[in-house]
Amino acid sequence: MHIDPADHVRKAIRSVPNWPKPGITFRDITPVLQDPRSFRVLIDLFVYRYMRQRLDLVAGVDARGFILGSVLAYELNLGFVPVRKKGKLPFDTVAEEYSLEYGNATVEMHTDSVRPGQRVLLIDDLIATGGTMVAASKLLQRLGANVVEAAAIIDLPYLGGSTALKETGLDIYTVCSFEGD
Amino acid sequence: MHIDPADHVRKAIRSVPNWPKPGITFRDITPVLQDPRSFRVLIDLFVYRYMRQRLDLVAGVDARGFILGSVLAYELNLGFVPVRKKGKLPFDTVAEEYSLEYGNATVEMHTDSVRPGQRVLLIDDLIATGGTMVAASKLLQRLGANVVEAAAIIDLPYLGGSTALKETGLDIYTVCSFEGD
Repeated sequence: MHIDPADHVRKAIRSVPNWPKPGITFRDITPVLQDPRSFRVLIDLFVYRYMRQRLDLVAGVDARGFILGSVLAYELNLGFVPVRKKGKLPFDTVAEEYSLEYGNATVEMHTDSVRPGQRVLLIDDLIATGGTMVAASKLLQRLGANVVEAAAIIDLPYLGGSTALKETGLDIYTVCSFEGD
Repeated sequence: MHIDPADHVRKAIRSVPNWPKPGITFRDITPVLQDPRSFRVLIDLFVYRYMRQRLDLVAGVDARGFILGSVLAYELNLGFVPVRKKGKLPFDTVAEEYSLEYGNATVEMHTDSVRPGQRVLLIDDLIATGGTMVAASKLLQRLGANVVEAAAIIDLPYLGGSTALKETGLDIYTVCSFEGD
C-alpha cells in the first residue's frame, strides 16, 4: 500500500484554533516531527526534490527552519548555515530588517557563512506573509549567494507570501497549503 | 590518513573573544556546520554513539539543539521533539523555570510530545551552567520519559554545568571541552 507523501504530511499537521490569538489557526508541525515515520516522509520529500540539484549550502531560518535545514544538509552532503534572529550570532554579521504586523524584526547571517557564487537552498517551516523569507533571501544575495529555491512545508496562500516571494524572482516549493478559516 | 573526529570538530569551532560581553569567550559552532565534512564528522560522532542504543525520541533544545537533534532523529529513525523557549508552542504545555545570571528563563514542551516510558536522548550544542539542560530533563521526567543521556558538542567544565547535571543522576556525553580564559 503506497501513501501520498505530501498528503500524509498534511494530515499529520495539527491545526490549533485561536493561537497565537483569537481568529488565527496555527498549523503545528510538531506531530509530524515526533512520529518517526511522518518525520522521514517529510524529510524525504525534500531530499528527493534536491538530491539531483547542484547545491552548496542549506540556509535554515531560526528556529523551525533549523529542524528541516540541518537534516537536508546532512543527507545531501552540504553545509548548513543559520539565518538567525537579531543578536544571536557572535561574529561579523549582515542584517536585514522586515515588517511584522506590529513593528519590525531583523534577521542576521555571518558575513563568512556564504561565499560569492555558492548555490543555496533557503528553508523554513512555513510561508505566511513571506517577510522572513524575503529578508533572508536578500541577505543571501547580499553575500553573493545564488538562492536556488525557497522551500517550506506549509504555504498559507491567502496571506500572499508565496506570491510576494515569486514576484522577487525566487523559485518556491512547499509540500502543502492551508486556506484561512 | 585518519582523523580524530572529536579533535577535528574541536579545531573547527571558532572562539570569539568578548562576546556576548567583555571577558567572555564565545565558542561558535557555525564554522563546523557550514563545512560539509566537519558537519558530517560532528553528526556521525553522535550517530555512532547512539546507533546501538534503544531510543524512542530525540529532544532538542531551542534553537541550536534543533540543528543536532533533528539530524540524529532522522538518522536513527526516531521522532524529534523540541524543547522550546516560553510562548512558542501552540498546544497544551508543561513549563519549567530556571535561573540565569540575571533573572529567569522558562522552557516548555507539549504535554503530548512524550509518552510515559519512552527513552529520550536530550541534546543541545553546549553545556555551560547546565541550567537549561537540567530544566529540560525535569520536563521530560515530568512527562514520564526516561532520559537516557544528555549530550552536547561542547562542555565548559569551569562553569560547573556538567558536574551539576551528573549530580541530578543524568548521564552526560560531550564531544569536547574548553577551559575558561
